[in-house]
Amino acid sequence: MKLLREMVVTDGKVYDNNVLKVDSFLNHQIDATLMLEMAKVFYEYFKDEKITKILTIEASGIAPAIMVANLFKVPMVFAKKSKPSTLKDNAVFTAQVHSYTKNVTNTIVVSEKFINEEDKVLIIDDFLANGQAVLGLMEIVNQARATTVGVGILVEKSFQDGRKLIEDKQVNICSLCRIASLENNEVKFNIADDEK
Amino acid sequence: MKLLREMVVTDGKVYDNNVLKVDSFLNHQIDATLMLEMAKVFYEYFKDEKITKILTIEASGIAPAIMVANLFKVPMVFAKKSKPSTLKDNAVFTAQVHSYTKNVTNTIVVSEKFINEEDKVLIIDDFLANGQAVLGLMEIVNQARATTVGVGILVEKSFQDGRKLIEDKQVNICSLCRIASLENNEVKFNIADDEK
Repeated sequence: MKLLREMVVTDGKVYDNNVLKVDSFLNHQIDATLMLEMAKVFYEYFKDEKITKILTIEASGIAPAIMVANLFKVPMVFAKKSKPSTLKDNAVFTAQVHSYTKNVTNTIVVSEKFINEEDKVLIIDDFLANGQAVLGLMEIVNQARATTVGVGILVEKSFQDGRKLIEDKQVNICSLCRIASLENNEVKFNIADDEK
Repeated sequence: MKLLREMVVTDGKVYDNNVLKVDSFLNHQIDATLMLEMAKVFYEYFKDEKITKILTIEASGIAPAIMVANLFKVPMVFAKKSKPSTLKDNAVFTAQVHSYTKNVTNTIVVSEKFINEEDKVLIIDDFLANGQAVLGLMEIVNQARATTVGVGILVEKSFQDGRKLIEDKQVNICSLCRIASLENNEVKFNIADDEK
């Protein structure tokens, strides 16, 4: 998506040859118009898949996921990173998600009430790097005996192995912006032929 | 808002005479269509206030806030509950927010880059009870020398003192659903005359 690539170049900040900071429009301050435009791309890509539910993980997945859910006119569910007190009485699906950036492992939790075996789930997240968050969400979809129909990602670090790990499970990924390299603190993109 | 009150009655669950669980449509699974309808009410209410920014707090404020931001065509900023590693290098506004439900005090954090003294801020949150989250967000707006123009709340527990604490600061609150009592695990509403 050209608009997103332009914003990554203009407003993103790279450091340590690996970290891309996009907190001015994607995950702290959020550009609402950009979110809607991105949601439209996911909708076009997945609209024939009979999606019944959008699944994401708190916190920065929520904004894109709710915009997507609004276009599909289906509910959005977000996985919580620890077990809140109001979930205690209920049966939950859980998965372990390791964050390499923060070097912590979180338990992510979704109430069993909100995904069932009829569901065709579209997973939305802001970043795909090592793929641990998406794999954790797919694990929860599996526990519910539902189907992960696809994964929609705003920014993919294609030089890390998240995409491969997800494609190994025969799940289709739509990434709006694929970054080939951040070496020398410079953003280089993978751009598909039909996007040039 | 009649639709929201109906959903609170139909799908909400009350326990301990005080806790209202609305996780099937408001803060775990989220009804996207309802979110949009609620955002429209806030837009109508505050549309003449020259809002420049929507401010909320992770995680369950994000979905309504981004929908509102989309209608106002302004950025949304969400306060984080702890200091993430990617914020470390930057100057931040912080406030202390005590959660009576969870009995923890969180430091909430917003990068100084994203609110400035020109900003006219609309604060959005899912719940208003003791008002601590909203007061923390208002404290951050104050630190930025910006103006809190109003507060938009999905569900207000009117029997707790959040509304009074905010109104004492001469800030206008628009609550879509005001709950007068949860005694005997039964929901009773405050309904304004023009809403009946």
